[in-house]
Amino acid sequence: MSIYRDLGKDFDEWFDWIVKEAEVYDYGRYPVKGMGVWLPYGFKIRKNVVELMRNLLDATGHEEVLLPLLIPDSILAKESEHVRGFEDQVYWVTHGGLTPLDVKLALRPTSETPLSYLESLWIKSYKQLPKKYYQFVSVFRYETAATRAMIRVREVSTFKEAHTLHSTFEDSERQVAEAVEIYSTFFRELGIPFVISKRPEWDKFPGAIYTIAYDTLMPDGRTLQIGTVHNLGRSFTIAFNVWIHMPDGTMDYGWQTSYGISERVVASLLSVHGDSTGLRLPFKYAPIQVVVVPIPTGPDEVRREVLNLCAKVLEELRAGGTRSLVDDREDMTPGDKFYYWERRGVPLRLEVGPREVQSKTVTVVRRDNRARISVKLEELTEAIKAVGSDYDNAIKSEATEAFSRHVVRARSLEEAGSLIEGNIVEVPWCGRVSCAMEMELKVGGRALGTPLKILDSDIGELKCAYCGDRARTFMRYSKRY
Amino acid sequence: MSIYRDLGKDFDEWFDWIVKEAEVYDYGRYPVKGMGVWLPYGFKIRKNVVELMRNLLDATGHEEVLLPLLIPDSILAKESEHVRGFEDQVYWVTHGGLTPLDVKLALRPTSETPLSYLESLWIKSYKQLPKKYYQFVSVFRYETAATRAMIRVREVSTFKEAHTLHSTFEDSERQVAEAVEIYSTFFRELGIPFVISKRPEWDKFPGAIYTIAYDTLMPDGRTLQIGTVHNLGRSFTIAFNVWIHMPDGTMDYGWQTSYGISERVVASLLSVHGDSTGLRLPFKYAPIQVVVVPIPTGPDEVRREVLNLCAKVLEELRAGGTRSLVDDREDMTPGDKFYYWERRGVPLRLEVGPREVQSKTVTVVRRDNRARISVKLEELTEAIKAVGSDYDNAIKSEATEAFSRHVVRARSLEEAGSLIEGNIVEVPWCGRVSCAMEMELKVGGRALGTPLKILDSDIGELKCAYCGDRARTFMRYSKRY
Repeated sequence: MSIYRDLGKDFDEWFDWIVKEAEVYDYGRYPVKGMGVWLPYGFKIRKNVVELMRNLLDATGHEEVLLPLLIPDSILAKESEHVRGFEDQVYWVTHGGLTPLDVKLALRPTSETPLSYLESLWIKSYKQLPKKYYQFVSVFRYETAATRAMIRVREVSTFKEAHTLHSTFEDSERQVAEAVEIYSTFFRELGIPFVISKRPEWDKFPGAIYTIAYDTLMPDGRTLQIGTVHNLGRSFTIAFNVWIHMPDGTMDYGWQTSYGISERVVASLLSVHGDSTGLRLPFKYAPIQVVVVPIPTGPDEVRREVLNLCAKVLEELRAGGTRSLVDDREDMTPGDKFYYWERRGVPLRLEVGPREVQSKTVTVVRRDNRARISVKLEELTEAIKAVGSDYDNAIKSEATEAFSRHVVRARSLEEAGSLIEGNIVEVPWCGRVSCAMEMELKVGGRALGTPLKILDSDIGELKCAYCGDRARTFMRYSKRY
Repeated sequence: MSIYRDLGKDFDEWFDWIVKEAEVYDYGRYPVKGMGVWLPYGFKIRKNVVELMRNLLDATGHEEVLLPLLIPDSILAKESEHVRGFEDQVYWVTHGGLTPLDVKLALRPTSETPLSYLESLWIKSYKQLPKKYYQFVSVFRYETAATRAMIRVREVSTFKEAHTLHSTFEDSERQVAEAVEIYSTFFRELGIPFVISKRPEWDKFPGAIYTIAYDTLMPDGRTLQIGTVHNLGRSFTIAFNVWIHMPDGTMDYGWQTSYGISERVVASLLSVHGDSTGLRLPFKYAPIQVVVVPIPTGPDEVRREVLNLCAKVLEELRAGGTRSLVDDREDMTPGDKFYYWERRGVPLRLEVGPREVQSKTVTVVRRDNRARISVKLEELTEAIKAVGSDYDNAIKSEATEAFSRHVVRARSLEEAGSLIEGNIVEVPWCGRVSCAMEMELKVGGRALGTPLKILDSDIGELKCAYCGDRARTFMRYSKRY
């Protein structure tokens, strides 16, 4: 099965193959389980994704900071639900050199606890609020389950965590809405389709009032959680005494939210757009947007002209702000080069041979549909931008349309069960936890949660698929990563 | 004593004060010794410094990667000199959750060992060489000495480490020269004065053939090591079997170099330019280059005009690519704002009051010498660029000239001893290790090493200050951090 398009092999196999073959991420060879290496090409993809997120956060008043990696036992343990949620999967530093440390130090699994501790020192008054911090860091989870490159790792090396503080619950709710807006823009920009669900009570972040999550479908039909937004309420501000002067002269605890994404974004970017040949990166975020491949046939003089034209084309592309290169390797055929750059997902290929020299054109080949377009030299920069933008729209709609076909509604548990492979199945639900849990068992998938907004007209006369009472919303189920 | 300019207090006190007061780095309050927090303003300074280094490395064919933080015991221990150099100061992870790990994992103190291990998998042929990798990461040293914000920390959170691999020793030597060139450009750009010394044999990086180091003088007259370049020879390629197909068909071990900088660069950037009021950041690298301060006096209408003009000026500055803001806080006097932004080292202040509205000018005040210049509105963008560039040249020359006065030569050990406080003292030396070590004891400073290039005419008839034999070079001594 492949949700988006034929991958020529199983998704698992495809993913391991392309991550290695396109030199994105070296996985399974580093001598610590669950820890991989970002290779130069992968690092550039990661960098563009990180920059997009940074720009969105900076534009909305978030401030980047960098906290220490190590969290003392006493700080991590301060919020009791939180520590129960993480204690099994925390790595502990116990020695400095040969000396045992006085206090065990955790490798951060996430930073609610140290940041709340710091906020108790930094924030004194409502006048300083709202405060929105973020950082890009590594976080560590001692996962006991089987690991997968970028998808389930023990060192999450591209964790963006935002943490905000507010003087009222209403303002924290407004912040949750802003975070949802930011993440929606982010995933849309990358063409990664998603549903947003309010996670069930029993699956929220340890310490949160509620958790909103973004899930995409991987090509094998399983959902992958690619972002979460938590309203933390006052769990941490009470535990850490984040005690604030309020406008009315009283003192009270602040309200917090936090939200995060990880390299799963990169994993899904690769997966939702890729095909059997390899990656297909969005033009806007590809490390290399255009590769120029010379096709030097004929006498030496003609070959020289071909290479000259390539150099000229490259200069013009770069002057126009397009990330480009000429592949002038001499020990490879043009065909091998085509395949090499297609695998790496470069959106546009320019072919330059004797014919192009003569006609003063270049041939542009799109990575998605391999359409060939002849472009006059004097129109090159504009044409590339236009084709690049068409290409982006095409691969994004392709992903979104395929995804939509796999978000389906079922009226009965039997129907839901028959749809659960490869789909996100929405089942009418009365709102009782017991019904949702029973349905989970029957449907054979796991509960993702409920849509953020439901119109009465969406529900109509639907009944809870378990108890038959009037439905209030839908519970979503899927096979989950 | 203050090498550069009066700081109004001891350097130690000044540094702790300004790092806190300008909200650069929160130190000494995080509940793990030797670990600090980059605050939003400090993070922006750090970001500009990091970007400068990244640009220099990318432009010279270096590729950014990201390796795991954790290094298994067996990998770290593979090169024997190296592990002896680090074993006392490595943090060890011993548990995942409550489970003891099979293998102890070190928090990376530096990445020669894991990268050499990976190179043994990645690099097969001389055709792939030279290979130049770098990463920006945190490294950890369990320092037992007293710690200082950014200067001596247990989590070095802004470590740039570059690692290169070559097929010949000659090529590794060429790489050392390139690294020296890159670092020299980097420090010159930031106006951080330095000497480059080949460190003495007994003070080189564990595993290296030799170490070249950059030292600057802090205002208290002690030297701070701000960058190092190592020729690693084949210590690690032999230990890790980085075994390469050579052009002549044979197989042989590769040659390596590595070079690093840390947040000490930021510490020295703040220290060499600062004054008793606070920071003075270079215009080119300041997070905020220009602050516009409205001086709204008189009737409401005039006040409105002043604020309108401020908004117009801001728009124009930003359109011209200048990082600017208007400080329109209502609960602060203009004078308090002046001081607030001076402390933070903003290079230029624009004052806009009723007089400026009337004359269609703005008043530009330089942070370094407080010179006031009146600029016509229509010339604003150009004028700001010109003044910014003058300001940069001024603060850079100031630092360089002050520094040069403190690099001095002594002919005798007595003279060297009398100069050692507050200076880098160059003492003629015959080249014998025993002489250099004896001199170190007598001079009362520590040996920094020898200049990279020495002309015969520099030496002339000079004699080794210890044994009286003919001098071959100078050994540099200083009080070191």
